[in-house]
Amino acid sequence: MEKFELYCYYRSSASFRVRIALNLKKIAYDLHPVNLIKDGGQQKTDEYRKLNPSAQVPTLLHGEKILGQSMAILDYLDLIVPEPRLFSKDPYQRALQIQACEIINSGIQPLHNLAVLTELGNQAGFDQARKDVWTIHWLTNGMRTFEKFISAHAKEFCFGSQASAVDCFMIPSFYNVQRYHIDESKFPNCMRISKSCLDLEPFQLAHPNAQPDFPSPA
Amino acid sequence: MEKFELYCYYRSSASFRVRIALNLKKIAYDLHPVNLIKDGGQQKTDEYRKLNPSAQVPTLLHGEKILGQSMAILDYLDLIVPEPRLFSKDPYQRALQIQACEIINSGIQPLHNLAVLTELGNQAGFDQARKDVWTIHWLTNGMRTFEKFISAHAKEFCFGSQASAVDCFMIPSFYNVQRYHIDESKFPNCMRISKSCLDLEPFQLAHPNAQPDFPSPA
Repeated sequence: MEKFELYCYYRSSASFRVRIALNLKKIAYDLHPVNLIKDGGQQKTDEYRKLNPSAQVPTLLHGEKILGQSMAILDYLDLIVPEPRLFSKDPYQRALQIQACEIINSGIQPLHNLAVLTELGNQAGFDQARKDVWTIHWLTNGMRTFEKFISAHAKEFCFGSQASAVDCFMIPSFYNVQRYHIDESKFPNCMRISKSCLDLEPFQLAHPNAQPDFPSPA
Repeated sequence: MEKFELYCYYRSSASFRVRIALNLKKIAYDLHPVNLIKDGGQQKTDEYRKLNPSAQVPTLLHGEKILGQSMAILDYLDLIVPEPRLFSKDPYQRALQIQACEIINSGIQPLHNLAVLTELGNQAGFDQARKDVWTIHWLTNGMRTFEKFISAHAKEFCFGSQASAVDCFMIPSFYNVQRYHIDESKFPNCMRISKSCLDLEPFQLAHPNAQPDFPSPA
């Protein structure tokens, strides 16, 4: 198997998702931290844009193959390393899992990512406090929808008794719920599943706190 | 084959994507218009939320099966009606197509959808003119990234010589480029491909102007 390399940032949700997926599949990878803040954002350099024209993390390299977007990366990993599966074999179950992932992927995370918060500063003059109100609004609404959606499917994990792509998406957004001090009890399934996932090595090793670019206390 | 029913709004990008996909696969469907503006938004009713907890269009019904999120719906359609394919069989080509779709699905459309524009009014006091500036910013940036990304793959269509999911995503966002009077020549591949797609029946029949809920001139 060709070498895997992951360009990512410790706190980026999409990076966190892909690290969980790689760990679940026991795929070893070299990690290249990309600091989204330092030097005005290392993701904006011409060199990085050659890997990822969206100037976003993560980017996965598999030999000569280059891939961006966590949904695309998880789908790819599931095809080339089929076990354990991230998505069901059943077309409808699989589609419901994609729907759950997209409630986060297109419905929550893009609305409070760094680029949007920066633009809210530029166009609306938002300071940090107003950016936080904005973020908490979308995180709360979106996770409420997600919680409701998975309630018919959740067991030990978001979709049944095995970790799936849906957990790869939920855990990083639930980490944001905690970071922004949103009342976790609004999301009982997520709270319970997050706690038990973070007892498992694939999730622990993917956690922002466990990354080499996690800032050391001053 | 069980009956297909589509809940959608004529001008919604995600609805437009799914209509194109259904037409490309020659899947007949019953259409149920959901007016996102009238009565404070018909997507917000308890009845509709039972179908789609995100309170968004589209929702596809296939017999008893209920599905939201255009990415999930296209993936499902491609599995149950495999020809013509929306995604490549090759894992890497397929992943690149998903990446292209996501540049739009998570990178452009969520940032200027109705819910976000409404919240910009609520939290930032944006009037219509400032909402338009916001929309044009994300559409222009995002379509520039998309144009760059597909430039290595585009032929008659966004990915090679056959219509794919990527065209289902590009056409509705290019329609928005035109609606907001953004200079189309910034996106030469999209401009060329959009023109030729709209000569084809599956795209024509999916167009907002061809929908039963398209407002008739006063």
